[in-house]
Order: sequence, then structure tokens, then C-alpha cells
Amino acid sequence: MAAKMKAAIFVEKNRIVLDDKPVPDIGPNDALIRITTTTICGTDIHILKGEYPVEKGLTIGHEPVGVIEKLGSAVTGYREGQRVIAGAITPSGHSYASLDGCHSQCGAGTPHGWKAMGGWRFGNTIDGCQAEYLRVPDAMANLAPVPEGLTDEQVLMCPDIMSTGFSGAESGGVRIGDTVAVFAQGPIGLCATAGARLSGATTIIGVETVPERMEAARRLGADHVVDFGKADPVDEIMKLTGGRGVDVAIEALGLAQTFEACLRVLRPGGTLSSLGVYSSDLKLPLQPFAAGLGDHKIVTTLCPGGKERMRRLMNVVASGRVDLEPLVTHRFKLDDIEAAYELFGHQRDGVLKVAIAP
Amino acid sequence: MAAKMKAAIFVEKNRIVLDDKPVPDIGPNDALIRITTTTICGTDIHILKGEYPVEKGLTIGHEPVGVIEKLGSAVTGYREGQRVIAGAITPSGHSYASLDGCHSQCGAGTPHGWKAMGGWRFGNTIDGCQAEYLRVPDAMANLAPVPEGLTDEQVLMCPDIMSTGFSGAESGGVRIGDTVAVFAQGPIGLCATAGARLSGATTIIGVETVPERMEAARRLGADHVVDFGKADPVDEIMKLTGGRGVDVAIEALGLAQTFEACLRVLRPGGTLSSLGVYSSDLKLPLQPFAAGLGDHKIVTTLCPGGKERMRRLMNVVASGRVDLEPLVTHRFKLDDIEAAYELFGHQRDGVLKVAIAP
Amino acid sequence: MAAKMKAAIFVEKNRIVLDDKPVPDIGPNDALIRITTTTICGTDIHILKGEYPVEKGLTIGHEPVGVIEKLGSAVTGYREGQRVIAGAITPSGHSYASLDGCHSQCGAGTPHGWKAMGGWRFGNTIDGCQAEYLRVPDAMANLAPVPEGLTDEQVLMCPDIMSTGFSGAESGGVRIGDTVAVFAQGPIGLCATAGARLSGATTIIGVETVPERMEAARRLGADHVVDFGKADPVDEIMKLTGGRGVDVAIEALGLAQTFEACLRVLRPGGTLSSLGVYSSDLKLPLQPFAAGLGDHKIVTTLCPGGKERMRRLMNVVASGRVDLEPLVTHRFKLDDIEAAYELFGHQRDGVLKVAIAP
Amino acid sequence: MAAKMKAAIFVEKNRIVLDDKPVPDIGPNDALIRITTTTICGTDIHILKGEYPVEKGLTIGHEPVGVIEKLGSAVTGYREGQRVIAGAITPSGHSYASLDGCHSQCGAGTPHGWKAMGGWRFGNTIDGCQAEYLRVPDAMANLAPVPEGLTDEQVLMCPDIMSTGFSGAESGGVRIGDTVAVFAQGPIGLCATAGARLSGATTIIGVETVPERMEAARRLGADHVVDFGKADPVDEIMKLTGGRGVDVAIEALGLAQTFEACLRVLRPGGTLSSLGVYSSDLKLPLQPFAAGLGDHKIVTTLCPGGKERMRRLMNVVASGRVDLEPLVTHRFKLDDIEAAYELFGHQRDGVLKVAIAP
Repeated sequence: MAAKMKAAIFVEKNRIVLDDKPVPDIGPNDALIRITTTTICGTDIHILKGEYPVEKGLTIGHEPVGVIEKLGSAVTGYREGQRVIAGAITPSGHSYASLDGCHSQCGAGTPHGWKAMGGWRFGNTIDGCQAEYLRVPDAMANLAPVPEGLTDEQVLMCPDIMSTGFSGAESGGVRIGDTVAVFAQGPIGLCATAGARLSGATTIIGVETVPERMEAARRLGADHVVDFGKADPVDEIMKLTGGRGVDVAIEALGLAQTFEACLRVLRPGGTLSSLGVYSSDLKLPLQPFAAGLGDHKIVTTLCPGGKERMRRLMNVVASGRVDLEPLVTHRFKLDDIEAAYELFGHQRDGVLKVAIAP
Repeated sequence: MAAKMKAAIFVEKNRIVLDDKPVPDIGPNDALIRITTTTICGTDIHILKGEYPVEKGLTIGHEPVGVIEKLGSAVTGYREGQRVIAGAITPSGHSYASLDGCHSQCGAGTPHGWKAMGGWRFGNTIDGCQAEYLRVPDAMANLAPVPEGLTDEQVLMCPDIMSTGFSGAESGGVRIGDTVAVFAQGPIGLCATAGARLSGATTIIGVETVPERMEAARRLGADHVVDFGKADPVDEIMKLTGGRGVDVAIEALGLAQTFEACLRVLRPGGTLSSLGVYSSDLKLPLQPFAAGLGDHKIVTTLCPGGKERMRRLMNVVASGRVDLEPLVTHRFKLDDIEAAYELFGHQRDGVLKVAIAP
Repeated sequence: MAAKMKAAIFVEKNRIVLDDKPVPDIGPNDALIRITTTTICGTDIHILKGEYPVEKGLTIGHEPVGVIEKLGSAVTGYREGQRVIAGAITPSGHSYASLDGCHSQCGAGTPHGWKAMGGWRFGNTIDGCQAEYLRVPDAMANLAPVPEGLTDEQVLMCPDIMSTGFSGAESGGVRIGDTVAVFAQGPIGLCATAGARLSGATTIIGVETVPERMEAARRLGADHVVDFGKADPVDEIMKLTGGRGVDVAIEALGLAQTFEACLRVLRPGGTLSSLGVYSSDLKLPLQPFAAGLGDHKIVTTLCPGGKERMRRLMNVVASGRVDLEPLVTHRFKLDDIEAAYELFGHQRDGVLKVAIAP
Repeated sequence: MAAKMKAAIFVEKNRIVLDDKPVPDIGPNDALIRITTTTICGTDIHILKGEYPVEKGLTIGHEPVGVIEKLGSAVTGYREGQRVIAGAITPSGHSYASLDGCHSQCGAGTPHGWKAMGGWRFGNTIDGCQAEYLRVPDAMANLAPVPEGLTDEQVLMCPDIMSTGFSGAESGGVRIGDTVAVFAQGPIGLCATAGARLSGATTIIGVETVPERMEAARRLGADHVVDFGKADPVDEIMKLTGGRGVDVAIEALGLAQTFEACLRVLRPGGTLSSLGVYSSDLKLPLQPFAAGLGDHKIVTTLCPGGKERMRRLMNVVASGRVDLEPLVTHRFKLDDIEAAYELFGHQRDGVLKVAIAP
């Protein structure tokens, strides 16, 4: 197939450009998707800045909404023209990891069947979706039909930030009546706040300083929002909880400092649920970690993927329980994606998420 | 009650001495136990060395086997003369923490009902059991009758090291067919090895260098024992697992270095189950922690207590599934406890655990 | 204490009368509560009709809101005059069952520490709270202070129906994105609906036929309400789920027929969460039970109690997440409790719950 | 491929015959296995007797050990000539059910992705392995390489009875120190006994009457074996547990009577773990079911499959923790499989399991 398409390509540190590329070929278990909407993730900015290494020439992007253009010869259960999404994480379904329920660490193709972050392929180890077309591997495990009546933008957050953010509450084991702190209210943190609410937390404390994000946090379920620009959030949270601490603390920023702060606000026996992508070693300070005797739990979660996960998240959208569409603050054509990177990368103009339409 | 008894008392750093003390008074929910056998724990050595602070004058010891001497006025369901043990951890049963199932962090008497390590009272916040008599608080939650036919030494490990060690496997979620590494094969680590075996692990790798402990590890269930004096244990474990890593890594020493090594041998999605009592900050190095994206879990557990836990552990002993009696390598009279501290504190003469009989 | 009080007493089948009784004496671990508000439960009607046997002369009622009048000599952490509730279930905290986290089956006082329904004492095995005063046993495990600003009626549902109803969703393991059916929308079923919503279910299908209850179901979170008077609810639910069935089916009525219907609407691998009090044998029909090969789970739950549970539920009320106050449709003085029984027992006048104030 | 092979074919009720059949064709995701050893399952006898309906002409058998003869064009990670097993259950890995971790109810190809028993394909909905060759669908999810040094007969129980039996303990949530009853000690029940032992149960009570099976139960981990031919097993178990009942009761026979007996020996809050294939409705009698208020759980499990499960079970074999080879009491050539059915179907000559070698 000699057809060409436009794609946002990593060229080198600080350069992601829109360029021509062949439309992908597909194998028997793949599908070709025509992208109708996609977005840019904080992780893409890490890639842009050279903080997370990918191969030169790779198409970036892992949040696809589109239409099935073509199905591999062994793919059944779908039809061309069908509207679908796929998760940022595309598990094989058949690795030892995937069969054990750990789809994000899917090691298909490795000797042992486990690979750290192995489920994350789009815009990481294979071409991504900031392009006109996308090859989806293991299509039957990953293509999730969009329910009637939902728009592209309504489901645009499902592939990554909604899945990741909600998992902060889920992996943290949030229960009815819990008190939960969520550090940072960027797109992931806002979804963690919504996920904590959806899981039955009754006191949710967001930590943020950008006014628009503080406001969004309140709309999505935070009972209190602590402005870390005005007060020490650890002190504030301990005050708000009357000295007890929180049952679950969710890290949604990716800094050693917020990770530590999470530990400092946890009650004994509490859970630190970490979603951040860190770029340095982390520290567990002796005293808040109770010298290892506090029955603390620390759990990390990489964005759960696969079509069952996507189905559930689109159900959340369809039910109206959580409305993330307002997170889309800016819209761009694919042709203007470099401008979108410029805006989103510098967090200008109150941007939360951008929608990119080829 | 003006009667006197002998007790091992913390006087100051590096001085625990046997001295006279009044036999304890008891309140309505307490019991008075006449100690028949007890032992010394690694934690007691920390106390002796001043590394873990306790009040001067405190009776040390948290592993009691004895006979009920007297019951508080509100205690029912027991009789004087009954042989019992109590856990190192004595939860109240009625704090918010205890009612939530988190007995070790029992905060009875605090405003919020949670207290870091609050369940550990004997030899920590109240007088312990290296003495002729012991007051057991919240007796109905804590006194566990010793089944017919079991000797003192057979159940002597239940109150602490068996409960702690087993919990390493339990909190780690060890499943049938798992590969488990246990760092250090001291008394706690040996019990963690036995606990991993009892939980269905099929490849258990102990890490140790003392020959007697390596041998004990094999007897208690280790399939491999890596001598960390001869080779890097991380390399060895990765070799033994063909590069896959382990499902669960149990830290049973209490050093930042072994904690890190646990993380380095974990497969993605694996669990680090920490039992150690640390005396410094810990580090989560970026790469083995997969930048926070490896679906790793870190769980810490303080010795589970309460009479139900003790009942279960004594069932293990009675069933013959695990025989920890060989861990008792030396025996002392209470009168000679200072010599016992001397021997145990310096790990002389291949000592694993000592039995102390008043 | 020769003082007298008014109490609703079971005299014989079909006769619960208001009569004089001595104000209860209390022991060292008890508290005496002056009741300010209570209510009547469906179970009380079973007792009234002789369907559930209790001793003649017993004071009925297990949903107390009140004020601490007097504390037992061994009770600490509370003060006289404090506003409190206690759960319908009052675990000891110190039985083997309670220490194992199974508070409802608390067997304090039995040889083995387990007793079917043993945690249910008020109005069952000891005097209940449809009276001016109530003795609360194991007060420290059971008295839960009412947060500032909440009225009696706001917390009146916490001791039983809110705890029971929510547990239908909790024990059923409801997850984000689940489809849940709730059979019957009486007080317990309505709380189960609210609990499913609070747990992240995105499609909740209530089954009911009384218009007021159907309407209440929608207000508390049902996305669909099937009128079983107009159509077969099994057919309707299978239609609504496109033939897939539900992830969790909650039985909240107590009939063999609805229990079976739950099984018939479950997807393979789904969970039947049973809250009903049955009065006949139940049947698991071969085909819907997939001959035992469907990976089905059936869980039953008796109202979770203890002060930690009550604290969490009052947090739900305080957070405004769920408002059960509208369930109080009628109000009576304790003096008129016989009329309240008359109304509630015959479900007259659209009654959902009554509030009784001494 | 016009080549012919021998296969055991269901002809009609009471007739399974060995006949010629074409060697199967394979698709891109399939593998063709040359069977080296297989066996007959109790379920096959149900099929033979017409109690479980399958299509006429179907090849029977779901416990394959063999060698890869040919790989589909899209299958990677295996090589021809490799020794492998596949589970009785062969999940797709890509259905909604499979991605949700419920492999046995895999509904690949159905509209909703769930199908009761859908994972069971061999000898049920597609040709099975009592033949010279076997087509394995979704090969990458199902082919599990046999570790060096293990014989065919050592791993012959992994595909079904070991996986099923162990799951009785796993789904039952058996914990260290539990008391477990296993009703019937046929092949599945014996594996349930071994699985309970492997999971930490310390009192295991088998129920059986055939002397060889009683003896095998003791060897595989039962602490007590109750002869139901000599005494009522419910009475005996209640006596053995001092009236307390068991934590987990495993049904491994498939009769309404044993199912009920399981319920009668359960402590409040206990779990009935059901493995049996029933052929009639089941009853939950009111009193042992505590009118629905006993916090009982009933879980059913269909043989867990997929290559990760097989890998774990073969690890158990390789570790020597459990030795099931003695269960193979008789050996037949495939040519003599009709005689094997005759013997096994009538449980003649102390047969436990037969090995069939083409």
C-alpha cells in the first residue's frame, strides 16, 4: 500500500513535526483505524522534551478515536466503518502477563511473557495515533465499539486519562466512606478525583494551585481543594482530617516531593496509590513510613487497557455519572498539531486537554 | 498487691537488667499471666542498643507463653490455671482500626482510633513478658488457649516471629505456583520461607550467608539458598528465574540495601512484602521501579495479633505442617536472662532463638 | 435502679405493646443510652407476626439514635450527654469471629467464638431500642458519635437499612462500569440501589411495582425501574442488557422467587448478593446455575455493625452523597408506637420508614 | 490435508467408538498437536451416558499432552517439535470475559463476549484430544511448554483435575490455619485435598468410602477421612470440629445431597466452594443457610485454563510439592480406548485415572 498519510513524528529532542508517512500495512490480527479524533498527553510532552526516549521517526500519540478502515484476515466480530476506540495500552490477551490479568505489563514476544510497561505500544514501541491512520495490533482484544449517541470528544478521555485516573481509586481500594487525597489536579488527577467519587469516597481533598484546575476539581467531586501555593498541603490535610490522615492518597503528578507528601498524610494502614511518571529516585522517609511497621501499602498502576476496560469506561460516560468533556478546552486540526503541542506543552491559556481532528 | 517478681528491665542504653518489680495489678478487662516460657526478639536488641526508644524502667519482652493466674472482673470465657499465649500485638478489638481489621495499628484511646504500631504494647508502651508475671490488656481479645499436647517451646514462636514471618507471604498475596525470594534467613526470614511454602509457592529462594541459617532455610522450605557472601543475590535470583524475576519478594532484614534488592528482583506487577524494621530512609530507584509504571505493589506488615491469629498459628503447629521448635537453639533461666541477651545480641554460637523459663 | 421507662414489648404472636419496664442496669463495659429517635424494621414485623421467634417480654427494636445517659465503669473515650448511634448489629470486638472481621456472626460467649447472626442482639437476644432507654453492650466497640450538624432523622437509617443495603453492593463486589439489578425497592432495596450507585455501577435496574417506591428508586440512583406487575422482570432485564445479563444481582426482598430471578439474570461469572431474610428453603435451578459450572458466586450479608461502620455511613450522610431522609414518611411518638406498627406492618399510606421519638 | 487419524468419537448415547477422521486443518491462530498422552474424565462418562449433550461425530477428550506438529501462520513464540500441554479450558484471551479474567466463561464470537462454560471447547464444542492429533485454537493463549524433565504422566493431570481441584481451595479462599472439608475423594476431590493443603489449611477432612480413595486422600493431605458408608459425614465433621464447623467446604461430587451437606458443616461466614457438575436443581435449606443471614458465600468454579495456569501447575509438579502420578492407575493404547471407557466408566479395579497413549 503506497498511500500516504499525515502523522506527528518524533524527529529529535524538542521536535515533533507533522510529516508524510505511508499508511500502515496490517497483519492478520490487526486492524487499520482511520483516526477521527485524538489528543496529546503529558507523556507526549516528556517524549518531546527527550525525557522519555523513543525511536526517531516514531509516530506519537496513544489516545485514538476512529473508524475501522480495514480488518486483518483473522479478525472477526467487527465490521469496517464501525466507530471504535482503543486504549493507550493494547495488551495481546495471550501473554502470561495478560492471562494473569496484568495487561499493562504484557510481555508478548518476550521469553517469559512479562515486560515492564509492555502493554504500552502506541507512540512508544510502535507508531501511534496522532496521524490519519493507525494500525491496532491484537485487534480483537483492543477495539471497543463506541455506543450509539456518544460523540468523539465524550469518549476521547477513555483511552488514557480516564482509565489511569480511575485506576488510582480502584488500585487504592477506595471504599464507601473513605477519605482520599489527590495530589495535583491536572487531567490525570481530575480523573482520579472523579474516580474516587465514583468509588464511594466521602471526603475527597484535591491539591492544586491553578485556579481553573481547582475549580474543575470541585466540579468533578472534590469536597476540599487545598491550594499548595498558599499553604503546606500536608499540614492542611492533617488539619482537615483532624489529625487522622487519609485512607488513600493518590499521587497524580510524578514528583518525588508529592510522593513523599502522600506518605505523610496517610493514616496507619493506608494506601498510597501512585499514578505519576517519575523521573528521579523516590524516597520513603523513615518516620512517615513508620520504620516499615505501619501496615502501609504502596501501589502503582499503569493505565489499564483492553476492550473490556474501554467498554466499562464508555458506560460511565454514557450513564452521565462523570462528564469529562469540559476537560477539552482547545481544538485543533491535525495540520495544526505543532501549535497544539506548543500550547499544551507550556500549559498556556488554561489548557486542560486538546482535541485533534485529522 | 505488694508481691514482688523478677523482670528484665530497660535501665538505659546497653543495659537491660533483671530486677525486682511489683507483680502487676489488673483492671476489669485484664488478665494476669504467670509466664512459663518467653524469648528474646531482634527488636529487644534494638531496644537494648537504644535504637528503638522505650521508657526507662519498662519490662521488656513481647512473646509470652504462660498460665492464667488471675482474671479481671469483666473477663469471661477463661479460667484460672489455663495455659495460654498472647500475641506480641495486643489489639483492643474495639478501636476504629481494630474494627476495620487493622489490629496492629489499633488506636484505642486516641482521638481517631488509629495509631501507628498502636497494637504493639508489650515491652513497648506497657510492661512486657520477660518477667514472672504479665498483665494482658483486653484479655478477651488476646488470650489464646494452648491446645492439648503442645509444649511451651512448640508455641513459643507464635506470638511474634511465626505471625510476622507468615504474614510476609500472606500480605504478599503468594499464590499457588509463585516464585518467591526471601531476603535474610534469620528467625523472621525463616518463618517467611515457611509461610511462602505453606501458601503454595513452588520456587522459594532464600538469601543468607550464615551456614546454619542457610541449612535451616532448606529445611523450612527454600528450594534454593543464595549465599550473598559469595555472589550478588540480585544477579543470582535473576539467573535462577531465567531473567523473569520473582512474583513476591519478602524483605526480612530491615536494611535499605535489601529493600532495594527486593525491588530489583521483582517482575513487573510483582509485590514487595516488607517485614523489616528499618532505621533509615528507604529509596525506590527509578529504573527497577519502572518510573512508577510497573504495576508494582509494596506492602508492609506489622506482626498480626489477637487470639484468632494465635489460634490459627497454633493449629499450624498442631498439624505438624511447620515445625519451628528447632529454631530454639539455646535455653536459659529467667535468672540468667542477661547472659541470654549477651549471646543473642551478638548472634554467638549459631543462636537462632533462645527459650527463657522463669 | 428502680426507675421505670416505656418500652415496646413482644407479648405474643401479633401483639407488641407499649408497657412499663425498669430502666436497664449496666455492667462495666456497657452504656445506657436515652433514645431520642428510633424506627421500625421489616424484621420487627416478622417478629410481630411470630415468623421470627423471640422471647416473650423482650423489648423490640434495633435502630437507636440517642444520648449517652451513663457509662459503664470500664468504658473510656466517651462522655455522658454525647449524641450517638449504635448499629443494629453490636459485635463484641473480642470474639474469634469479630477478630476475623466477621462481626455479624460474633460468637462471644460461645465455646468456639462463632454464632450464626450472633452479632444481632438488640431486639433479638437482648432488649432493644423501641424504649426510652437502651443498654448497649460492648459500648466501646459500638457507640458511634454523631457528627455535628446531623439531625436524628438524617442518621436514623445508618444502624440498619443503610448498612444492610450498601453491603449488598459491597459484598457483591460492584465495580466501576457494572450493571446491577436490585430486586425490590423497599427500604433495604432502595439503600442497595444507592449503594450500587455509590460503588460505581453505571447501569442500575430496580425491580418494583409500588409507584412511590419506583419513584424513590429513580431518585436514589436507578437508571431503569422494571414494574414486575406489568412484565416479567427476568425478561425485561435480559432485554435491557441485550441478552448479556447483569454483573451483580441484589436480592432485597426475601422470597425464593426473587432469589431465583436474581440467578436467572446473572451473566456467567456474576455475583448474586443476597440481603433478604428468607422463610423457606431456596432453590438453585440447574440451568441458570449452569450445572455448577458458571463461575457464579452467591454471597449473603447480615447488616454490618460496629462503630467504624457507623462512622463511615454517617460520613456518607454528612457528605451529602446520599440523602435517605425522604425515606422517613411518617412520624410517631413512642406512646403511639402501636399505631406505627399498624401502619408500617400493613404498608399503608405509602409508608417507607417511620420515625419514633420517645 | 487428506491424512487420516484415529479418534474417539461420540456416536450416540452409550457409544463412544474409535474411528478414522481427517487430521484437522488449522487456521492462522491455531496449532496442530500430535497427542502423546491423554486421559478420560468423569465428564466424558457423562457425555457417554448422554447426560451431557454433545454433537454426534464429535471427538471426545480435553486433557492433552503432546508435541507441536504444525503452527498457524500468525502464531509466534513456539516451535514445531516442542512438548506442550493445553488446558481443558482454552480461553481466547480476547473476549470481554477473558480480558476481565474470567477465562472459563469466555464468550469469543458471541455478541456480548460472555458465554456460560464458553471456555470449554475441547470435546464439547470442538473436536477433543482422544485422538492422534488435536487442533488447539488461540494457540498463543493456550500452549504451555512442558518443563525439561517432566514426563507425560506427571503433567497429565494439569489440564483438568489438578486445575479444577486446586481451584476448589483457591476460589474458597483457603487461608493458613483453616479447617476444610472435601466431599468425595475421586480424582477432583483428591486434587482439592492437595490444593487445600498447598493453600495452608491445617485441618483437612476428606469424605469418602472407597478404601483406595480414602488412602489416597491421606497421602495427598487429608488429616481425617470420614467414611460416609459408616457414619453421617455431617455429624462426624461437626464432632471433629467440636461443633464449630469448617471454614471452607468443597463439593467435589456433583450431587444435591453433598452440596447440602457442605452447607450443613459450614461455620457462619464460611465458604462453600463447589466443583461438582450437577444434574439436578440444588436446594439451600433454610436453617443451615441461616435464613440468608449467615454471611455464607457459595462459589462455583469451572476448571481454570490458559497457558499461565498450566505453567503454574506444572511448576507445582516440578517442585515436587504434590505428586499426582500415582493417580494414574491404568494405562491403555488409544486403540484400546473403548476398554478404557469400560473400566473407567464403571470404576472397576480401583481405577482413579487412566493414561491413554496413541
